[in-house]
Amino acid sequence: MVPINQWIKIKAPATVANMVCGFDILGFAVNNPYDEMEMRLVTRAAHQAAITIINTDDFNLPTDPEKNVAGAALIAFIEEYTANSIIEKSLGTESKLIDFSKIGFEVKINKLIKPGSGVGSSAASSAGAVVGANYLIGNPFSKDDLVRFAMNGEKVASGVKHADNIAPCIHGGVTLVRSIFPLEIVALPSPTLFVTIVHPQIEVRTADARSILKQNVQLKDAIKQWGNIAGLVAGLMKGDYDLIGRSLEDVIIEPVRSILIPGFDELKKACKAAGALGGGISGSGPSIFFLSKERDTALAVEQEMKKLYEGLALAHHTYVTTINQKGVEIEGQGKFSAK
Amino acid sequence: MVPINQWIKIKAPATVANMVCGFDILGFAVNNPYDEMEMRLVTRAAHQAAITIINTDDFNLPTDPEKNVAGAALIAFIEEYTANSIIEKSLGTESKLIDFSKIGFEVKINKLIKPGSGVGSSAASSAGAVVGANYLIGNPFSKDDLVRFAMNGEKVASGVKHADNIAPCIHGGVTLVRSIFPLEIVALPSPTLFVTIVHPQIEVRTADARSILKQNVQLKDAIKQWGNIAGLVAGLMKGDYDLIGRSLEDVIIEPVRSILIPGFDELKKACKAAGALGGGISGSGPSIFFLSKERDTALAVEQEMKKLYEGLALAHHTYVTTINQKGVEIEGQGKFSAK
Repeated sequence: MVPINQWIKIKAPATVANMVCGFDILGFAVNNPYDEMEMRLVTRAAHQAAITIINTDDFNLPTDPEKNVAGAALIAFIEEYTANSIIEKSLGTESKLIDFSKIGFEVKINKLIKPGSGVGSSAASSAGAVVGANYLIGNPFSKDDLVRFAMNGEKVASGVKHADNIAPCIHGGVTLVRSIFPLEIVALPSPTLFVTIVHPQIEVRTADARSILKQNVQLKDAIKQWGNIAGLVAGLMKGDYDLIGRSLEDVIIEPVRSILIPGFDELKKACKAAGALGGGISGSGPSIFFLSKERDTALAVEQEMKKLYEGLALAHHTYVTTINQKGVEIEGQGKFSAK
Repeated sequence: MVPINQWIKIKAPATVANMVCGFDILGFAVNNPYDEMEMRLVTRAAHQAAITIINTDDFNLPTDPEKNVAGAALIAFIEEYTANSIIEKSLGTESKLIDFSKIGFEVKINKLIKPGSGVGSSAASSAGAVVGANYLIGNPFSKDDLVRFAMNGEKVASGVKHADNIAPCIHGGVTLVRSIFPLEIVALPSPTLFVTIVHPQIEVRTADARSILKQNVQLKDAIKQWGNIAGLVAGLMKGDYDLIGRSLEDVIIEPVRSILIPGFDELKKACKAAGALGGGISGSGPSIFFLSKERDTALAVEQEMKKLYEGLALAHHTYVTTINQKGVEIEGQGKFSAK
């Protein structure tokens, strides 16, 4: 357990969910961008809140713990810890239990992942908060427990308790959410992959992106999709770049959702012509990502993205990064220098 | 190249297609049952057929090469060889080309895999014939070429040029047919798995099994299915038996097709209670297969199968075997002793 009042630093990575054919099941973490967070345990009087959120960025996100994604995740964390404590006390097996009626969390969030960009901004805050909280009290919970708590943050953000971004954010690498009820996350090995992301500065509401999906799909399309999913998993695990590339095809979601993103089809053509293995919409958009085998290709892909959105006079950010294999990291005790 | 008139012996394994959640994409070969075949090159006069089929079993299958699955596969084999020969001659790169207007194949088939049992009986004949033919003339074709030729046999058998059984029959092990057009087969590593198969002696016509499928599926079911497919591929490649077991679930095809097979639900419950990892309908049935981690479990599963079908007074065969990792094998020159 970290001493009361001692700050720890946390890095929480951005994540790409809905990895092309792997809608709702496959996602991965990236090394850039990421959120910076600081957390500490504090003593509190009965009238003081168990969770204090301090935003050090300019996004004006709510600080009420129930409305803040990190706060909602921490509420679930404290509730389960307390419930387990009661059981341990009744069994007489408690040792150094924390009493959350007298101890609270203080969380500072410096959001570097723009909210609404489609690369897991809310997941980074939720995941960072629960990984930090767990570290502060001596890591009693497993990663899968932490995913469950953090999913409460996603519910605050989008109304749905999904694990698509939380799973890779906490586990790192490429993750498969095989099942939501019961929750089962499978870490998938992957070879070195360079990731180019473009965030065109338009708003795509997750609710809209969900509502335009068809509730039924043709069996023949579903079969094509699951061939690609099986190929993608096999390609990642074999380190077979060509197989990964051929499998990065989505015949079900992308044809519907891509109409929400200006220039999508043209961008895809240009990125693949520049040598990308494949890619698609990140999460529910508007960000778009492409994977490449080599850094130079990823940089060439970035140029194509810039050229296209400059041509459309649409403000945008780009990132060239790699898959983050570690997930949320505790950077040690202390504070980030800038704050 | 094997000398004219010299017989070779071929073993062509049975195969399980539609591996639970992997409808139309995942299949595997088994070590028992298998077809025995003998083949040789013969000189022929212009009035003699290029392909002679001799059935040494009692199934009364057609011997006209165009109507016999092995014959149809060999016709495709000879056609492509001849087309390539013409190109090689035009380029002046031919060397020891075989002239199929003067040379033919004689094929003896001893079918030990009962036709219509749902474990790739037709695929074994088609695959065995083209692997044998390739061996006889010095292996000019790749395995993927041979799969393409053998698919013509499936067209004769079921009207559809599918590779679900042909791919594992030729490659061995567990195979993924990622795409049919263009054909792409991915060999998947797998840990030791014991396979129990029961063949209840009823007829399920492939055409019927296809026609009762719904042409549309719910997106939420498709997502569940692709989570399981990704889990199954990852489980096989990691050798994670528990993950394999949890992923062996089919929410789309099995609920519809299982009504064609008497006692299916009860059998499934009994096999899983006996310790099987999971299983389902083999191909389009009527055979049912279950996978187990241990031989003893596979034998206990067999007892459950026998008990159930004895209870239903339904004639049946069972097999306890393992996954065949080699595919069609040339057993060397000579003839099977029994014939």
